[in-house]
Amino acid sequence: MSDNNKKFGFKLIKTDGMARRGEISTPHGIVNTPVFMPVGTQGTVKAMYPEQVRQTGADVVLGNTYHLMLRPTAERVARLGGLHKFMNWPHTILTDSGGFQVMSLAQLRKLDEDGVRFQSHIDGSKHHLTPERSIEIQGLLGSDIQMQLDECIKLPSPKEEIQRAMELSLRWAERSRRQFEEMNGPLKGQGLYGIVQGGDQPDLRIRSAEELGKMPFEGYSVGGLAVGEPQEVMLRMLDITTPVMPTGKPRYLMGVGTPDDLLESVKRGIDQFDCVMPTRAGRHGLAYTRYGKVNLKNARHQDDPRSLDEGNDCPATSTYSRAYLHHLVRAGEGLAGMLLTWNNLAYYQQLMLGMREAIEQGRFEDFYAQTKADWAKGDIPAL
Amino acid sequence: MSDNNKKFGFKLIKTDGMARRGEISTPHGIVNTPVFMPVGTQGTVKAMYPEQVRQTGADVVLGNTYHLMLRPTAERVARLGGLHKFMNWPHTILTDSGGFQVMSLAQLRKLDEDGVRFQSHIDGSKHHLTPERSIEIQGLLGSDIQMQLDECIKLPSPKEEIQRAMELSLRWAERSRRQFEEMNGPLKGQGLYGIVQGGDQPDLRIRSAEELGKMPFEGYSVGGLAVGEPQEVMLRMLDITTPVMPTGKPRYLMGVGTPDDLLESVKRGIDQFDCVMPTRAGRHGLAYTRYGKVNLKNARHQDDPRSLDEGNDCPATSTYSRAYLHHLVRAGEGLAGMLLTWNNLAYYQQLMLGMREAIEQGRFEDFYAQTKADWAKGDIPAL
Repeated sequence: MSDNNKKFGFKLIKTDGMARRGEISTPHGIVNTPVFMPVGTQGTVKAMYPEQVRQTGADVVLGNTYHLMLRPTAERVARLGGLHKFMNWPHTILTDSGGFQVMSLAQLRKLDEDGVRFQSHIDGSKHHLTPERSIEIQGLLGSDIQMQLDECIKLPSPKEEIQRAMELSLRWAERSRRQFEEMNGPLKGQGLYGIVQGGDQPDLRIRSAEELGKMPFEGYSVGGLAVGEPQEVMLRMLDITTPVMPTGKPRYLMGVGTPDDLLESVKRGIDQFDCVMPTRAGRHGLAYTRYGKVNLKNARHQDDPRSLDEGNDCPATSTYSRAYLHHLVRAGEGLAGMLLTWNNLAYYQQLMLGMREAIEQGRFEDFYAQTKADWAKGDIPAL
Repeated sequence: MSDNNKKFGFKLIKTDGMARRGEISTPHGIVNTPVFMPVGTQGTVKAMYPEQVRQTGADVVLGNTYHLMLRPTAERVARLGGLHKFMNWPHTILTDSGGFQVMSLAQLRKLDEDGVRFQSHIDGSKHHLTPERSIEIQGLLGSDIQMQLDECIKLPSPKEEIQRAMELSLRWAERSRRQFEEMNGPLKGQGLYGIVQGGDQPDLRIRSAEELGKMPFEGYSVGGLAVGEPQEVMLRMLDITTPVMPTGKPRYLMGVGTPDDLLESVKRGIDQFDCVMPTRAGRHGLAYTRYGKVNLKNARHQDDPRSLDEGNDCPATSTYSRAYLHHLVRAGEGLAGMLLTWNNLAYYQQLMLGMREAIEQGRFEDFYAQTKADWAKGDIPAL
């Protein structure tokens, strides 16, 4: 599955409006963009076998530095041959910097210019995450696409706070880059992305994007969105930010989102996404389909012999009746989460494939309108 | 997968000592005996896709009448086309009578000559399970191999209690049979098994087996064992019971057991087994292998790059490192249960296949000795 390409690359194949069709090459294969990357927090995409994740069409999965540095530890993963081998995923892996989850999960956090000190939520052990250490960890994991350490703050926040965090993130971007070069990331064909911050402040977003654009990153992320603000604020920030981001590099909107978020963001020039939504929703009885979200807990499904969506390629979507899925959800059976996660990841990948084909054929606007119309129809009526 | 055979049958192909190699035919296929039947309590073998269960070599799975009658209810399953279709298992299904789980799970149980009244452990709703109702439910589910209602009591118990329950079970056997014929079970090619009771009392076991043998059942179960007594008591009861059971009918030892129980019981002429052990153990971090039981929670696995058993056909057994499995178990990831259940069911099926081949080739004693020797070696040493 992996190829011998040892140079990280991005090829822009086609644009349609702001929407872009591209290809990222990494040491572990080609990533077709726009791409959705399933989240494999602790070295596993929850409730899925890795081969299944691949079969849904995923070119890349995400690993979380915060979780993996605590358990099983980056050093252990490295001794065992790296994260690809450890989790049986021979394709591309992207890792975050760990910063976001330190701020949301760890205890007794203390952030200063140098980095962030915290205690593990698992065993209370003390850790110090700096830009350098984050890159070191991501290198030990063997990640193909790495992220600079940044400070991501909640919205709303006062502008001076947003500005302080954005400027700190710029200084950390430089330190992250230096460490990445020192570890020979570029020679290994790995990529490091800088992260645009600036909250909901247009001028700060623009300055962040411009400053990062001057640094030699392999790609650029948009961070600090989908952190509590309405969708329209997020989209306005994209409208402002993507035009000042380098066109020849991939653009990754971190932690986003709903199917509608993906459609709207591709329209605004985003190439990469990750989100726990399809996997988490699947474990909570929610299915994503062409016709929107279906809550399998609902009693209206209990006698329904129809599948979620007949004729769909995914067995979880087309083989099992809604009545059976409803039963599994109500009975608390693990197979419910297994089947609904599978369905949801398959749907997300089908949506991305639809977007990629539409952009290639110059009909993204039509695809956008048709997809929205299908969602608006809602789920098929109960029997 | 199903065939057109509408007559329940049992063919004894070969015997080797007391061990028997046979074939049960049901409306949903051939069951090669000795057979292990994975337990699909609530219409799902926990943490497994049905296709996977089949791939491990399972010819038949078990459904629990008590659970299914309460949720989603037998009437609903029947409306949806029966249990095979509901759970996407087109092969043979065996159901128990519900009696055993009423006595272990339900609330406010009251047993009399007519049957047992109880309240659901899920919502407190009131139910009355009689021999007739149990067969009606199993017919609604569309079960290929059905069980009479019996009274199974814990060991040790006073002899008069054991005798009372055994005699009640004989009367219930007759009522169950009458209901089964009335519902045209035989015409549908389904089978009904009588259940030998008698606790740890040789004379009661013999009387129960002899009386049941006079009734026209398609098969005979041995119940009331593996309910707290030492293995040697169970094996002594088998030594006494199987010689007085009809040779031309399959013999099913209910709720058993460990790999060693299976080996010892096949040696004593048992053809069918079911047990939650491989699935439940899998969800608790325990793996069964050629070399015995492996506790993946144990820290000795944390740096071990070796799989559970190299060269094994099951991907769960041969692809993933012990270090990874240990990590998944410690992190509480669902994939741990998915992979270890898969490994365990595959091991159980491999053990049964080994026994079937050995009996065919007249070398069961050798197989028995070799298997015990392998288990005695214990797991491979830690690195």
